[in-house]
Amino acid sequence: MFASDNSSGIHPRVLEAIARANQGHAVSYGADEWTERAHALLRSLFGAGATPFLTFNGTGANVLGLSVVTPPYGSIVCTDCSHVATDECGAPERILGAKVSTVDGHLGKLSPDQVERFVSNIGVQHHNQPRVVSVTQPTELGTLYEVAELREIAAAAHAAGMRVHMDGARLANACAALDMEPRTLTADVGVDVLSFGLTKNGAMGAEAVIVFDAEIARDLAYQRKQQMQLASKMRFLAAQFVAMLEDDLWLRNAANANRMATRLADGIESIERVAGVYPVQANAVFAEVPHEMIASLQERHYFYVWEPDRPTVRWMASYDTTDAVVDDFVQAIREEGDAL
Amino acid sequence: MFASDNSSGIHPRVLEAIARANQGHAVSYGADEWTERAHALLRSLFGAGATPFLTFNGTGANVLGLSVVTPPYGSIVCTDCSHVATDECGAPERILGAKVSTVDGHLGKLSPDQVERFVSNIGVQHHNQPRVVSVTQPTELGTLYEVAELREIAAAAHAAGMRVHMDGARLANACAALDMEPRTLTADVGVDVLSFGLTKNGAMGAEAVIVFDAEIARDLAYQRKQQMQLASKMRFLAAQFVAMLEDDLWLRNAANANRMATRLADGIESIERVAGVYPVQANAVFAEVPHEMIASLQERHYFYVWEPDRPTVRWMASYDTTDAVVDDFVQAIREEGDAL
Amino acid sequence: MFASDNSSGIHPRVLEAIARANQGHAVSYGADEWTERAHALLRSLFGAGATPFLTFNGTGANVLGLSVVTPPYGSIVCTDCSHVATDECGAPERILGAKVSTVDGHLGKLSPDQVERFVSNIGVQHHNQPRVVSVTQPTELGTLYEVAELREIAAAAHAAGMRVHMDGARLANACAALDMEPRTLTADVGVDVLSFGLTKNGAMGAEAVIVFDAEIARDLAYQRKQQMQLASKMRFLAAQFVAMLEDDLWLRNAANANRMATRLADGIESIERVAGVYPVQANAVFAEVPHEMIASLQERHYFYVWEPDRPTVRWMASYDTTDAVVDDFVQAIREEGDAL
Amino acid sequence: MFASDNSSGIHPRVLEAIARANQGHAVSYGADEWTERAHALLRSLFGAGATPFLTFNGTGANVLGLSVVTPPYGSIVCTDCSHVATDECGAPERILGAKVSTVDGHLGKLSPDQVERFVSNIGVQHHNQPRVVSVTQPTELGTLYEVAELREIAAAAHAAGMRVHMDGARLANACAALDMEPRTLTADVGVDVLSFGLTKNGAMGAEAVIVFDAEIARDLAYQRKQQMQLASKMRFLAAQFVAMLEDDLWLRNAANANRMATRLADGIESIERVAGVYPVQANAVFAEVPHEMIASLQERHYFYVWEPDRPTVRWMASYDTTDAVVDDFVQAIREEGDAL
Repeated sequence: MFASDNSSGIHPRVLEAIARANQGHAVSYGADEWTERAHALLRSLFGAGATPFLTFNGTGANVLGLSVVTPPYGSIVCTDCSHVATDECGAPERILGAKVSTVDGHLGKLSPDQVERFVSNIGVQHHNQPRVVSVTQPTELGTLYEVAELREIAAAAHAAGMRVHMDGARLANACAALDMEPRTLTADVGVDVLSFGLTKNGAMGAEAVIVFDAEIARDLAYQRKQQMQLASKMRFLAAQFVAMLEDDLWLRNAANANRMATRLADGIESIERVAGVYPVQANAVFAEVPHEMIASLQERHYFYVWEPDRPTVRWMASYDTTDAVVDDFVQAIREEGDAL
Repeated sequence: MFASDNSSGIHPRVLEAIARANQGHAVSYGADEWTERAHALLRSLFGAGATPFLTFNGTGANVLGLSVVTPPYGSIVCTDCSHVATDECGAPERILGAKVSTVDGHLGKLSPDQVERFVSNIGVQHHNQPRVVSVTQPTELGTLYEVAELREIAAAAHAAGMRVHMDGARLANACAALDMEPRTLTADVGVDVLSFGLTKNGAMGAEAVIVFDAEIARDLAYQRKQQMQLASKMRFLAAQFVAMLEDDLWLRNAANANRMATRLADGIESIERVAGVYPVQANAVFAEVPHEMIASLQERHYFYVWEPDRPTVRWMASYDTTDAVVDDFVQAIREEGDAL
Repeated sequence: MFASDNSSGIHPRVLEAIARANQGHAVSYGADEWTERAHALLRSLFGAGATPFLTFNGTGANVLGLSVVTPPYGSIVCTDCSHVATDECGAPERILGAKVSTVDGHLGKLSPDQVERFVSNIGVQHHNQPRVVSVTQPTELGTLYEVAELREIAAAAHAAGMRVHMDGARLANACAALDMEPRTLTADVGVDVLSFGLTKNGAMGAEAVIVFDAEIARDLAYQRKQQMQLASKMRFLAAQFVAMLEDDLWLRNAANANRMATRLADGIESIERVAGVYPVQANAVFAEVPHEMIASLQERHYFYVWEPDRPTVRWMASYDTTDAVVDDFVQAIREEGDAL
Repeated sequence: MFASDNSSGIHPRVLEAIARANQGHAVSYGADEWTERAHALLRSLFGAGATPFLTFNGTGANVLGLSVVTPPYGSIVCTDCSHVATDECGAPERILGAKVSTVDGHLGKLSPDQVERFVSNIGVQHHNQPRVVSVTQPTELGTLYEVAELREIAAAAHAAGMRVHMDGARLANACAALDMEPRTLTADVGVDVLSFGLTKNGAMGAEAVIVFDAEIARDLAYQRKQQMQLASKMRFLAAQFVAMLEDDLWLRNAANANRMATRLADGIESIERVAGVYPVQANAVFAEVPHEMIASLQERHYFYVWEPDRPTVRWMASYDTTDAVVDDFVQAIREEGDAL
C-alpha cells in the first residue's frame, strides 16, 4: 500500500516498549518515569532549552504549538498546501480563532519575501496581525527546505516580530535525507516551536510539541488540557518516544522510507506516460499518470489521487516498505501502462 | 495505588488485540476492519440506531458529544462536581463557546426540578438557552443514578426541548453494579448522546461518543476532525474496543473494581476516626480521615486528597486491584490511625 | 417607567453634541478630533496612564476588557448575579473561551476570601487558571462596594497573580453616591481594566474600556476590531462622551437617579406588605411585593419582576426620573396594596 | 474628502428622526414602536418573509448573518478582496470558528465555477465543508454583479447544499445604479441572508441582518446578543432606518454618490498619467496615479492608497459629495499631474 505512511502499523520495538511500560500502576497525566525518560531523550535531541509536550496526533500538535505563538487576532502564514491550511478541517481557526493566511508555495515551500509582504498589515487594526510563519519540513509535496532557506525565512519572520512554527510530522525523513541533527533543522535555524511526529514513522500514535523558548512554554500545559490533548495514561505515549529515539530507530525508519521513495522514483523513470512531478527528496513520490490506469493500479497497491484534474497521484513510502514491494509496484505501473 | 483507575495499565488482552491488529498496512482514519468490528460490537451493545465515533480521551469524547447538542448560545446543565465543569480546564467553553451551568448536586446527582428551573431562560435573549443536561453515571462521587431517576431527568429535559448527554467514562462500573445492559441505562432512559469510556477500565486509551439519533450524528465526523480527535491509525483504538467488548471483559473488569471498592469500604468501617462519606455504589470510596495520617498513608499506597478542608480523600479501585492490595491498604489505614 | 435606566432616552445635551459633531467629513475609525477630545477627558478623569477604547455597548465593553486579562484557559471570578455571568448570553465564554466562575454574592458583592479560594487551582493543569476577578460597582443589586472592600479584593487578586476588572456600566452612580473621583474607585484601589458606561446615564449608546496598564492596552485595538466593537463614525460615540464628561453632566445625571431611588425607597417604607430587600445605595430599589398587585401596578408604571418566587421586583430610577413620577408611583403602590 | 463613504456625517433627516424618537422612556432591546416601524419598512422592501435584526456595524452584521448559515467546520467561500476576508481582523474566524476560503476575484466578483470547485470537499472529513458563498454587492472594487450572475452563483451554491450570504453594506448603491428593487437583487436571485447597511449612506451607525428563511432566523436573537450586537436603546438604531427608508432617502443618497463617482471618473478621463482601473458602476473610483502626486493631492482632498505597488488609489464618493467638490478634485488632480 502506498496510500500514506500512516497506513503502516506499529514497529515491533514500539509495541515492546508499550508492553514494558505496562507494569503495575503509574501516576497519570505525565508524572511517571517513562514520560521523564521521553522528555530527557527529546531534550538530548533538541537541546537543553527544549520543552516537550506529548500529544495524541499531528493536528493536535500543530494547533497546540500554534496556540502559544499567535493570539486570535493574529494570522498564521503558510503555503496553500500545508496541512494546517488544508487537512485539519479548520481546527486552527476554530481552536485559536486566528486566520490561516496562505501563500502560493513553490515546490511546496514559501520564501522570505512572501513573509515580508505581510509586514504592511502590522499596526493596521482592520487586518489580522501576522504573528507566526508555519513551515512544513519536509513539505506536503515531499520536498525539503535547505538549512539556508529556513534560516532566511526565520530571519524575515523574526525581523517582523513573528514567530516560526515547523510542522515536523515527518521531520525524521528530513533529518535522514539531509543527514542532519534535528536541532540543526529547528532551533539552530530559528524555529520557535515544533510539531514533532512519530506516528507516520512507526509509532502507534505519538506526537510532541517542542518549544524552544521557555517563556512560550510557561502555560502550555493548560492549553494542552483545554485542547483535549492530555493523555491520562501518558506513559504509553512516552514509551513510544523512548523506543523510537533510543538507538536511532526513528532515523533508520525514516531512512528506509526515503530510500524506498527514491527506488520507486527511479523505477518509474523509464515508464512512458508516467512522469514524476516534484523532486523526490523525502518519502513521497508525486506522479502524473494516465487517468485510465488509476483504478486498476489502486487495486494492486492502494494509493490516493492528489489532484483529479491532470491527474496527479501520490505514492508514499513507509518505514516498513520493502524493495520487493516497490519493485512489484513499479512492475504493476509498467504493466498497467502497457495495457492501455 | 488508589489514586485513580487511570493509574492502572493495559489489560493483557487489550495489548494482545493491539498486537493482532498490527498486521501490515490498513487504510487510515477508520476505514479498516477493526473499526468496522468495533462499531458492530458497539451497535450490538447500544442498539442498531446507535452511531459510534471513537476518540482519544474522555475530555475529547465529552466535548465532541456535547458539540452536537448545543449551539454556542446554549447552556450545558450539570452538577458542580461533574467532570465537564471542573476537570477539563474549560474545554467545553473554549471549544463550544457554550456556558456550563452548574447546580448543586445531591450525592453528586442532579434532579429533574433543577432542570426545570432553567425553563424560565427559554426565549429570553439575554440568557444562554438551556439545550442539554449532562449527567455522569456513575457520578464523580461514586454514586449511581437509578433508572427511574435518569428517566425523570430525561423527561424533564426533553419536555424543555433539551437533549441529554451522559458522561459514561465509567459506565461499565454502573452496568456491572446495577447488573443492567448499557442500552437500558442510556438509550432506553432517554440519553441522546453518550461518552463511553474504556481507558479507566483496562484500555490503553480509547473512548467513544455514541449517538442515539441519526440526525445528530450527521456531521459529527467533521466535528471530530476539527476537534483534533480523529486518530490516523484508528485500528489500534478500535482493537481496544474489540478486546474489551468481546466476551464481556469490560463488565468483568468493572465488576472487580466495584467489588474492591466495597471490600475497602467494608474494611474501614470499624476503623475509628475514619468515616466513609458517600454510599459506595461503584468503584470509588470517599472518606474523611485525620489530616495527620494522610502523608504517611500516601507513601504506602498513593491516593488523592479530594477536599483539603475536612479533609476528604478519594480511593479509587481499579480493574486490576486485588483482595490482597485492598487488605494491605485497610491494614495500613488502621495502623496509621492507631499511630496518631 | 421604572423598568431600567436604559429605558430612558438621550439627554438633550448629548444630542446637541452629536449634532455639533456632524460637520462635514471626518476620518473614520477614531482618527478624528472628537475622539481625541473624548480620550483627553477620560484621561483627565482616570489619570494620565489610562488608555480608553470606545465601544458600542456594555456587553462589548465587558468582553473586550476581559479579553486582555484572561487567556482561554483562564477563569473569570465574579458573583452569581453579575452581568457577565447572567445577562450576556454567554458572550464571555464564546468570545474568550474562558470560564466564568461564579461565587455566591453577599448583597451582590464578593469578598477577598472568595478570591483566595481559587488559589488552589493555580498550577493544576486540569483546572481553569484564575486570572481575573470581575466586580460590578454599583452591583446588580444596587449596592456599593466601599473603597476598603475594593482594595482588599484587588490585593487578594494581585497576590494570586490575577487582574481586576470592574464592570462600571453604572460607575457614575457609585461616584455620585460616594462623592468620590472615578479614579479613586478604580485605578487607586487596584482596578486594572474598567468598563465605563454612559448609556444608562443619558447617552444614546456609548461605553468605554479604560485600561490602567499600558502593557495590557498594547493590542486592544485589534481585539476591538475583531470583537466587532469598532465604530466607523467614531466621532458620534466620542461626542457623547464629550457632552457627558464636560461640565460633570454624568455626575449630575447619576446623582438625580440615586436621589429618586432613595425617594422611592423612603416612600414605600410605610406601605404594608411591601418591603425593601437590599440597602438602596445607588439607583435601584428591590422590593418584595404581593404577587396579586404586580400586573396592575406594571400597567401604571412598567417594571420587571426580578425573582418570580418570593416575588421580588426591581425598580430602577433614571437620570430623568422626577419627584412627581416617583410620588405618583408610591401612590400607585399604596393604592394597589390597599386594593388587595 | 474621498477617503471613504463612512467619512461622511449623518444626514439631517436621520438626526431629526433620532430626535423625534427621543420622547420619554421606551422598553429597551427592541420592544418599542420605532423598531416595529423599522421592521415593517424592511419587510415592505425585502418581502413579507424577510426577518430583520438590527446591528451596530457592518462587521457585526456580516458575522451575525454568517453565523446562521455555517457551522464551525464550514467554510465561507468569497473573493480575496471581500470585506469578510480582509478587513474584519479575522472576526469571522474568531466568532464562528469557520474557515474563510478565498478565490481570486475577477473585477472583484466570483463566478459559479469557483463555487463548484469546492464540491469535491463535501463529505471529506479532513476538509472544511463548504456551507456558504458570500458575495459583495457592489463589490469592494466598485463593480456590480448583474442579476443573472447572482442567480447563477446562488444556483451553484444551492445545488451544492450551500447558502448564499450577501454583504450589502452598500446595497443601496447597487439598487440605485441598476434601478432595481432590493428584493430583486437579494431574495429573488437566491440570497438567503443579507447584511444591509445604512452607515455609509447617511446614517450615524445602523446596519441590519435580513434573513429570507424563517428557519434560519429562529435563533438569531440569541446569536445577536452573544455576539454583542444587541443595542439597549434600540429605538435610536430603528429611527435611522425609518428616516432612511421612508420616502426613499436611502436611494436618493446612493444615487447621488453614484453620480459623483461617475462625474469624477469622467473628469479624469482626459488627464494624462492617471487611469481608471475598474469599471465605475457604483460610488468607487479606482485609479492608477503617479506616485509623486499622491501626498500633495491627499492634502487637498484626503483619500487612501489601495495598493502601494502600482500605485492604485481609491476615491469614494458619498451621499453628500457635491458637483463642486468633484470638480475641484478633478482640477486638483490635473494640476498635480501637470506639476510633475
